[in-house]
Amino acid sequence: MVTSTILSDLGTEILIPACALVGILFSLLQWFLVSKVSLSLDKPDAKHAFTESLIEEEEGVNDHNVVQKCAEIQNAISEGATSFLFTEYQYVGIFMIAFAVLIFVFLGSVEGFSTSYQQCTYDTTKMCKPALFTAVFSTVSFILGAITSVISGFLGMKIATYANARTTLEARKGVGKAFIVAFRSGAVMGFLLAANGLLVLYITINVFKMYYGDDWEGLFEAITGYGLGGSSMALFGRVGGGIYTKAADVGADLVGKVERNIPEDDPRNPAVIADNVGDNVGDIAGMGSDLFGSYAESSCAALVVASISSFGNNHDFTAMMYPLLISSVGILVCLITTLFATDIFEVKTVKEIEPSLKNQLIISTFLMTIGIALVSWIALPYSFTIFNFGVQKEVKNWQLFLCVGVGLWAGLIIGFVTEYYTSNAYSPVKDVADSCRTGAATNVIFGLALGYKSVIIPIFAIAISIFVSFSFAAMYGIAVAALGMLSTIATGLAIDAYGPISDNAGGIAEMAGMSHRIRERTDALDAAGNTTAAIGKGFAIGSAALVSLALFGAFVSRAEITTVDVLTPKVFIGLLVGAMLPYWFSAMTMKSVGKAALSMVEEVRRQFNTIPGLMEGTAKPDYATCVKISTDASIKEMIPPGALVMLTPLIVGIFFGVETLSGVLAGSLVSGVQIAISASNTGGAWDNAKKYIEAGASEHARTLGPKGSDAHKAAVIGDTVGDPLKDTSGPSLNILIKLMAVESLVFAPFFATHGGLLFKIF
Amino acid sequence: MVTSTILSDLGTEILIPACALVGILFSLLQWFLVSKVSLSLDKPDAKHAFTESLIEEEEGVNDHNVVQKCAEIQNAISEGATSFLFTEYQYVGIFMIAFAVLIFVFLGSVEGFSTSYQQCTYDTTKMCKPALFTAVFSTVSFILGAITSVISGFLGMKIATYANARTTLEARKGVGKAFIVAFRSGAVMGFLLAANGLLVLYITINVFKMYYGDDWEGLFEAITGYGLGGSSMALFGRVGGGIYTKAADVGADLVGKVERNIPEDDPRNPAVIADNVGDNVGDIAGMGSDLFGSYAESSCAALVVASISSFGNNHDFTAMMYPLLISSVGILVCLITTLFATDIFEVKTVKEIEPSLKNQLIISTFLMTIGIALVSWIALPYSFTIFNFGVQKEVKNWQLFLCVGVGLWAGLIIGFVTEYYTSNAYSPVKDVADSCRTGAATNVIFGLALGYKSVIIPIFAIAISIFVSFSFAAMYGIAVAALGMLSTIATGLAIDAYGPISDNAGGIAEMAGMSHRIRERTDALDAAGNTTAAIGKGFAIGSAALVSLALFGAFVSRAEITTVDVLTPKVFIGLLVGAMLPYWFSAMTMKSVGKAALSMVEEVRRQFNTIPGLMEGTAKPDYATCVKISTDASIKEMIPPGALVMLTPLIVGIFFGVETLSGVLAGSLVSGVQIAISASNTGGAWDNAKKYIEAGASEHARTLGPKGSDAHKAAVIGDTVGDPLKDTSGPSLNILIKLMAVESLVFAPFFATHGGLLFKIF
Repeated sequence: MVTSTILSDLGTEILIPACALVGILFSLLQWFLVSKVSLSLDKPDAKHAFTESLIEEEEGVNDHNVVQKCAEIQNAISEGATSFLFTEYQYVGIFMIAFAVLIFVFLGSVEGFSTSYQQCTYDTTKMCKPALFTAVFSTVSFILGAITSVISGFLGMKIATYANARTTLEARKGVGKAFIVAFRSGAVMGFLLAANGLLVLYITINVFKMYYGDDWEGLFEAITGYGLGGSSMALFGRVGGGIYTKAADVGADLVGKVERNIPEDDPRNPAVIADNVGDNVGDIAGMGSDLFGSYAESSCAALVVASISSFGNNHDFTAMMYPLLISSVGILVCLITTLFATDIFEVKTVKEIEPSLKNQLIISTFLMTIGIALVSWIALPYSFTIFNFGVQKEVKNWQLFLCVGVGLWAGLIIGFVTEYYTSNAYSPVKDVADSCRTGAATNVIFGLALGYKSVIIPIFAIAISIFVSFSFAAMYGIAVAALGMLSTIATGLAIDAYGPISDNAGGIAEMAGMSHRIRERTDALDAAGNTTAAIGKGFAIGSAALVSLALFGAFVSRAEITTVDVLTPKVFIGLLVGAMLPYWFSAMTMKSVGKAALSMVEEVRRQFNTIPGLMEGTAKPDYATCVKISTDASIKEMIPPGALVMLTPLIVGIFFGVETLSGVLAGSLVSGVQIAISASNTGGAWDNAKKYIEAGASEHARTLGPKGSDAHKAAVIGDTVGDPLKDTSGPSLNILIKLMAVESLVFAPFFATHGGLLFKIF
Repeated sequence: MVTSTILSDLGTEILIPACALVGILFSLLQWFLVSKVSLSLDKPDAKHAFTESLIEEEEGVNDHNVVQKCAEIQNAISEGATSFLFTEYQYVGIFMIAFAVLIFVFLGSVEGFSTSYQQCTYDTTKMCKPALFTAVFSTVSFILGAITSVISGFLGMKIATYANARTTLEARKGVGKAFIVAFRSGAVMGFLLAANGLLVLYITINVFKMYYGDDWEGLFEAITGYGLGGSSMALFGRVGGGIYTKAADVGADLVGKVERNIPEDDPRNPAVIADNVGDNVGDIAGMGSDLFGSYAESSCAALVVASISSFGNNHDFTAMMYPLLISSVGILVCLITTLFATDIFEVKTVKEIEPSLKNQLIISTFLMTIGIALVSWIALPYSFTIFNFGVQKEVKNWQLFLCVGVGLWAGLIIGFVTEYYTSNAYSPVKDVADSCRTGAATNVIFGLALGYKSVIIPIFAIAISIFVSFSFAAMYGIAVAALGMLSTIATGLAIDAYGPISDNAGGIAEMAGMSHRIRERTDALDAAGNTTAAIGKGFAIGSAALVSLALFGAFVSRAEITTVDVLTPKVFIGLLVGAMLPYWFSAMTMKSVGKAALSMVEEVRRQFNTIPGLMEGTAKPDYATCVKISTDASIKEMIPPGALVMLTPLIVGIFFGVETLSGVLAGSLVSGVQIAISASNTGGAWDNAKKYIEAGASEHARTLGPKGSDAHKAAVIGDTVGDPLKDTSGPSLNILIKLMAVESLVFAPFFATHGGLLFKIF
């Protein structure tokens, strides 16, 4: 067996941080370019030669009044978002500290808080570090993961609220200019997050190694806490942010659009600021935390499996770092890909927006395929063994390349299918729009059916990647397939974050009273954004499925189970109950959005009824109360669903044991994926069906419109129903499945020792 | 080991057919009592002393005109239903013949159509009958199952269309009289179906035994075809009937209620006859076939496992017939239970309807518990062994009593939970009604959340029954737990069929132009019927879950797999794809309803626009065209979902093999149960939320109403969305999971020999 790698360990130690730094620098460069769009009045942006090169048309560019208004609105949104996130982090912080203590106590108790060395779990001929210290390091990496997640979400929100008004202002000069600002800002977030996650993980490994030395089994077991920390934070971010944004959105729409017949984002609507804040805390910060969690978890899953495979046994550092090397190369690939959208090709018309974003996916996938091949060639020995539930399985480097590659390409397929089902350029959304002719009921029926149908191909794509990667390299294969899907995360996030930024830009245009034409441009950006948001969610869900399976495999290995047999009652009831959890969770989150939206509706109605001159535009609404309603509701309502997800593995593991827990994980995985995909696609389709009618860009669309027609009203109802589906319960579900799996993995030593109390008693 | 039973074989041979005959006679008696309500003008029913005893009030009793109108409408409905069922049976008949040929060819080919004796599968020391003959007998029992299913559905439809106008007429005398007619008619169907299913199965076993003699392994393997035939028929019945009824219902509501603002079931609405026909072909005939399928399958699953356990090995006929004895005693228990509703207690006011129906469930469960104990005591040896995936497991008779009992009581719990979530007497439906204040969107959000939430307790109830029965008696335990849940099927069907009969009665009252007061009474009956329909669906789903698991276990045994390990790629991808199938299936059926409803809407609109005097009531609409649209749509649209369900096990088994197929079965089971429960409860809740507003029976309800208010309009939209969920896709899903399992079992010998082509090639 050839075990040496072409890339030396020193090369690896340089390459990974170097790529991370390149990513951070590139992200700062993008930020700098965005910042050139001035929001201050002293130097109107027309002065910059750079911004003038591609101006198609100018509209109100020199209207200082508009600039000031935009700056004010942006400020209000940014402040609202910052204040919400701080409140959220305070509450979640307390929870995190409590959970950190729990991790320490549970893992420490595995060997009775003993400080003596112990037999290793897998290689029983060796002695490993005391469980107590692994408990300490797991706790530390948990906290690090949580903090990195907070930073990812928070920075994303900051850049998004920095870019939204700038996008609006650029929209005066044409759709191309606006597109580039929104896209660059998305890229800032994408690259910061990818590079930051990689760097922190890399440094943590190196620091922990100082203590662990040759005990890589313990080292990478402790590192899994990083994934748990990242995902726990992401859960609260997604759920809290999701409730916030949709309570505001639904509340604003129900009174504003349906009852008062005023446009979306009209400044007279008291909930309008809360709605725009919500986009940033939910779709941006929440999603950033989510994808960071996926990334951290798939890296951890791959590392923990590798540590008990030949890489770990032989202490082959370069091969061990293969997952991180994939991510490093991913950053470079995404950098090149970004240039295609910002510098090489140019978006000039509305019709070019979607193709440009789609090309990002295609280009990054093609380039990344080469990147993966390269990394697999230089960083892996030709042949090695991988731990596979008790036995070692031989794997060739080209097989591992196929594992990563199949994940990457499955991601692209999921992206395309999502686009097909949610973009208003294709027949599914047009059919849904058409069904609005007969009212809201048929719209809802067709929308639900569309979501269900959109599950089919992604599930086959995931199933094929699982089969290929599982067959070639067992659970390690699954973990690297997930990494493959996430290797282009910087690009994925860029096009995903682009969506809410454009949405906000449209909101600001409306609130600043800019012309219909500007609003049309931002609407076009936003419609493409709905699709890319759905694509982003598709990636998040697809990778979550793979990640969870890899974590599940690592958990099973660590818990020393050899089979998870559906034909045993313990496993089957776990499977059944696990499949139910996504429904329970969705019930909670949707009800929360509904309840919060009802309070919002009452407040908005109250303001319209009691503030004289509000409808006429002569009086200002009380935005702050609406912001407070959303904040309070989301903080209060995120706790029960959060507790459900965090406590289930603990309760099942402690009382029913690892077999039942395995069943629960498998059940929630296979059931959750379906609901998540269908919920996010249904929601995206409804939103775009509404936009299709509003835009009236085709003969068919015009027969359904215009705004305010019966068909349009029906479409608005569908859109409103879709809001909590696509932005609250749907995207939270992938965190549910990942988080339960990583939590089970972290607590596996405890469950294996002390779990299954109920069955022990009877 | 004591192997003798208290009940002799002769006693068993007398008891089973005797109970079946008692059931049939009781059902005929109920029919006779219903028939006393006269629809002819010569002898107005006031003549009968019997009907006068409990008359509370009389209204238009002597209005011959009304009686004649009712008779005419009933005729039209009955004719429409009969003609649709005949058309449906013609198409399905062709399919059934083709499938019967397939069964023969596939099973015959297992041993290359050899007519020589062969080693038995389980007891390899013995010789069994040739596979070719088992193929023949399987085909015959498949056809018998299909025919029995047809008879069950058809007779149910006949009595329902016989009883609906009679219920309307009795409603003139008071709600109690109407209730009793509707309930008795439900009982006719319940008892006929239970007794008929039992009798045919019993006779088939005895006839087949003449050939098989001591080869019980082959005998009961051939008998499983009965379950497959029953369920295949049920699939088309449910899907076809479901599309029919909801296309008509949705189409009628969309134009009638929403656009034209005329009441439900208004005779001016051209789709009104189709709507009422739909109730009978979908909710009655479809549901009858469905529950018959469940009953046949759970009996077959129990029998096939028993045949390879000590009962079969020792040729202990009484113990072998334990499943049939449970059903026999169930008929007697239900008979006594029925008397409580019809003779012992009396429904006098609207408020007593729901408690009376609920009492049926409680009484039958209590009595049946005693019945099960009795049967377990007299028909089982104290100790025996049960086949458990390759090994024999020792079971005591009291343990088996607990298995059946836990199924029975789980059924009751599911019934109660369903009632809680769908009856407008409790807060969940009231909350949904309340959410209509803010429009259709919040109504839909709250309704979906309610459905998701309603899954929790039923799943725990099913999980506990699985755990208990699995632990005590392996797959046999699961099969008899399913039988336990279905042991009170006669009562379950009676209260279930009562619903659509009342619904039709209301329709006839409206069409015959009867007074508002009569319509209020039938509405009250109908509201209780929505709840009992949801309860019936809950039973159907719960038992389907248990049945499928038992069939799945029998399939795994027959296919000679010893573990179904989630941690193998073949199984896991099966699990994932299996969990997706219910979504695919739902997408098809919902889209079908949506499309058919659109055609219906166009036709209804066309008639309103082109037939002069239609709105004014001076011209008659063209009912026949609407009936034709529903018929054509359902015949055409039932094929793709039917093919999906029927072909999946074949394709997976042939190309991917039995492990992947095991995964698919487990995945579709755990995922399908959740969607089925949530869909049927969401739909039931929306329907009753609407009825709650319409009835305006409380202060709270009156603030939302009256009919035509904005809240009511929002409620109507929810109701319309719920229609395909609760009456088409939801209830079809339990057939999906059962049918795939029983089909896999029947084809198991073939798959085990020739399956997994794709993996064999690569």
